[in-house]
Amino acid sequence: MENGSKRWGFRANKSLGSSSSITVRGVLNLLVGSLNKEDTREVVPLAHGDPSAFPCFRTTPVADEAVVDAVRSAKYNHYSPTVGLLPARSLFFVSCIGIVAERDLAVGTRKSQMWSFDGFSNLSVADYLNRDLPYKLSPDDVFLTLGCTQAIEITLTVLAQPGANILLPKPGFPYYEARAAHSHLEVRHFDLIPENGWEVDLDAVEALADENTVAMVIINPGNPCGSVYSYQHLQKIAETAKKLGIMVIADEVYGHLTFGNTPFVPMGVFGSIVPVLTLGSISKRWIVPGWRIGWLVTSDPNGILQESGVVESIKGCLNISSDPVTFIQGAIPQIIDNTTEDFFVKINNILREAADICYKKIQDIPCITLPHKPEGSMFVMVKLNLSSLEGIDDDMDFCHKLAKEESVMLLPGTAVGMKNFLRITFAIEPSVLEIGLERLKAFYERHAKIQ
Amino acid sequence: MENGSKRWGFRANKSLGSSSSITVRGVLNLLVGSLNKEDTREVVPLAHGDPSAFPCFRTTPVADEAVVDAVRSAKYNHYSPTVGLLPARSLFFVSCIGIVAERDLAVGTRKSQMWSFDGFSNLSVADYLNRDLPYKLSPDDVFLTLGCTQAIEITLTVLAQPGANILLPKPGFPYYEARAAHSHLEVRHFDLIPENGWEVDLDAVEALADENTVAMVIINPGNPCGSVYSYQHLQKIAETAKKLGIMVIADEVYGHLTFGNTPFVPMGVFGSIVPVLTLGSISKRWIVPGWRIGWLVTSDPNGILQESGVVESIKGCLNISSDPVTFIQGAIPQIIDNTTEDFFVKINNILREAADICYKKIQDIPCITLPHKPEGSMFVMVKLNLSSLEGIDDDMDFCHKLAKEESVMLLPGTAVGMKNFLRITFAIEPSVLEIGLERLKAFYERHAKIQ
Ligand SMILES: Cc1ncc(COP(=O)(O)O)c(C=O)c1O
Ligand SMILES: Cc1ncc(COP(=O)(O)O)c(C=O)c1O
Repeated sequence: MENGSKRWGFRANKSLGSSSSITVRGVLNLLVGSLNKEDTREVVPLAHGDPSAFPCFRTTPVADEAVVDAVRSAKYNHYSPTVGLLPARSLFFVSCIGIVAERDLAVGTRKSQMWSFDGFSNLSVADYLNRDLPYKLSPDDVFLTLGCTQAIEITLTVLAQPGANILLPKPGFPYYEARAAHSHLEVRHFDLIPENGWEVDLDAVEALADENTVAMVIINPGNPCGSVYSYQHLQKIAETAKKLGIMVIADEVYGHLTFGNTPFVPMGVFGSIVPVLTLGSISKRWIVPGWRIGWLVTSDPNGILQESGVVESIKGCLNISSDPVTFIQGAIPQIIDNTTEDFFVKINNILREAADICYKKIQDIPCITLPHKPEGSMFVMVKLNLSSLEGIDDDMDFCHKLAKEESVMLLPGTAVGMKNFLRITFAIEPSVLEIGLERLKAFYERHAKIQ
Repeated sequence: MENGSKRWGFRANKSLGSSSSITVRGVLNLLVGSLNKEDTREVVPLAHGDPSAFPCFRTTPVADEAVVDAVRSAKYNHYSPTVGLLPARSLFFVSCIGIVAERDLAVGTRKSQMWSFDGFSNLSVADYLNRDLPYKLSPDDVFLTLGCTQAIEITLTVLAQPGANILLPKPGFPYYEARAAHSHLEVRHFDLIPENGWEVDLDAVEALADENTVAMVIINPGNPCGSVYSYQHLQKIAETAKKLGIMVIADEVYGHLTFGNTPFVPMGVFGSIVPVLTLGSISKRWIVPGWRIGWLVTSDPNGILQESGVVESIKGCLNISSDPVTFIQGAIPQIIDNTTEDFFVKINNILREAADICYKKIQDIPCITLPHKPEGSMFVMVKLNLSSLEGIDDDMDFCHKLAKEESVMLLPGTAVGMKNFLRITFAIEPSVLEIGLERLKAFYERHAKIQ
């Protein structure tokens, strides 16, 4: 035993140790180390997408009470079925894919040829399922997951095959890269074009795809860009994917968090053009990321995912994974039934106000420019103009110094795949946001290059 | 599009589709199909380890109210840190590794040379950590997980390296096999010896291990055998593992659920002989498997797991995984502080009563024999004597016919690695258990071979 661990026959999977550096969490942990403990001002957290601590973003009491009722009922202490409880599956299906799509589409021009919307929200689940839809969807197409995080994990695990590759957006959400690396799934990046409202560069998608490409991922509303894709753009994405023979993975974790002119259109609407896997959760819309409940939905009226074994593999993967807490699943019907429209409207109004503050204040800070005003999600990407600054090396350096000097946390673009950009989270109390942006301005002024 | 999915460039990871057949859940799903819908009697579920639906196994209201308070506080809607909330980590550490070990050991002879127990339970966490223990343990050694399930997933993911192998007990818990297969970790099985109270065949362990063996797994108290290992046997396991240079993974999900003469001794007690990874959860002891909260604890005073990179990999793996629900983590201090001894005593008394019923009734059923009276967990393994039966092929056939004719669900030994054995769960309402065993007897009588 003296000469220590050399005798021990185990060693760890080292690749896991390094995974922390490529997730948002990992980068934030590094930045926290730069904060100056002697600065007595409050830290302004503009880096991470979790506004739940701010009173104005507190979830609706309706949701709390639904959980309280479910716990006290003692009906949900048991293990969950691997695919989730049926009532929750049904309601996610209708509420998250159906009804709300109607409301959102009604705001814009109603363009869907495939979806029959009228009077939709007054129908029961069963009635709804019996309607003459262009294609059949059912609660069987809904799989409950531990937040959108596990939906991503399962999707990438299922698609990882020797030689396969997947197309991811740049900038994007680095958890996809981390999970793909873990599953040895090759990643290829297509650009989102800032000047086009961060739309997908579809030519790049066509150039990247080959016979081993299995899917492309879109995040809509967008993290990190705050973009919301139009019906037309989504349709083009569907058609491109169809041409390439690949499925579309639509991360809609920020679904319905929109406050601009473009309404949210669920990608599932295009399921008869191309098979769609929709990933989502209640984390963002109900502002309860700690509750860990989400979904993976297949929109695939042509049965292509069934035929290719994808659905079977999803079930197999769920079978060897942990499930969402049963009593929270049990609370879902009450949460969905009782949450009233004004809660959602209130949240979107705060986000709109915060996005506007961001937009205006950024005009006063010459070292950053905003390519596109955010219309959804909780984030905006701004370009860092290093040439207007003295002694700042890059976006990482900028964020470290900003944390140290101004106690403001911003996410370096590098963490989301775009060097010398910055991601600003505006989902915080608007008054705190103003303070943060004032400090950002002061930081700029102190580091501005003298012309 | 006419000629269908052939154009689509994706295919799924097929190995996932088949994973369902090798988990307990998968086998149970098959058996459910054999139930006779025309039988108006209640189904007696003697196959799965989830007694939460029975009123006598209802969790303590203390636990419910702790969760209710945590939800209503609105302090725990945020994302969890990847390793878990500190107060919960501290309390699991003390309560699950420390205090309760004291109580249990006090029942038997106090044999630990390495653990200083006196007055332990009256100390605060901080006081406790400052005690002069033979080795330093701290809340940093505790990682919160989504039940014991995720603790297993993370452990096997971390240890999976090309060429590595792991030693698993036979019979065992097939989730280990499923997860090892998923991570391409080679599995080798050592026997548990029925005549020796299902102790580990340590000669077999020595014969199986080679320079690529990374760990051996023990489940104590045992699933599927209901065994509880003595201090002496655990010490021998530690010494054998040390000699082989492998770590011990101790699945203690049934920890403290003991009702025989052998007290429960946590494997962590032997951490200075051999590095130990302890896996556990509140699922079984508090009868809340749907709450999905567990832990992975390293007991490793010599820092071998740290040095070999295992701890770093555990953190890396947690970093790309979903976390337990934050408000349930927030409720843990209140759950642990407020649950009184009589709740645990009551549960163990019901289990003892049920185990006794099992033991007695089995004597009357000649086609099954019980090698060892259960002393812990919720299960017992019995041997099926096919020679005393007419027209029954094997354990699977037995269980299918029993389900069909008597509406009794039993787990075929094949599902846990031991053909022509049966696993009986006795953690059900005792009166229902009696009914189930009566029907088992009637089934035997109908199928008995005429001598
Ligand atoms: C694009 C995107 N997908 C998925 C997630 C994870 O969501 P959840 O909290 O539901 O796991 C996030 C969280 O920030 C996200 O930004
Ligand atoms: C031996 C063993 N380990 C782990 C588990 C999973 O425990 P949990 O419900 O905490 O995920 C079980 C569940 O039955 C088990 O029997």
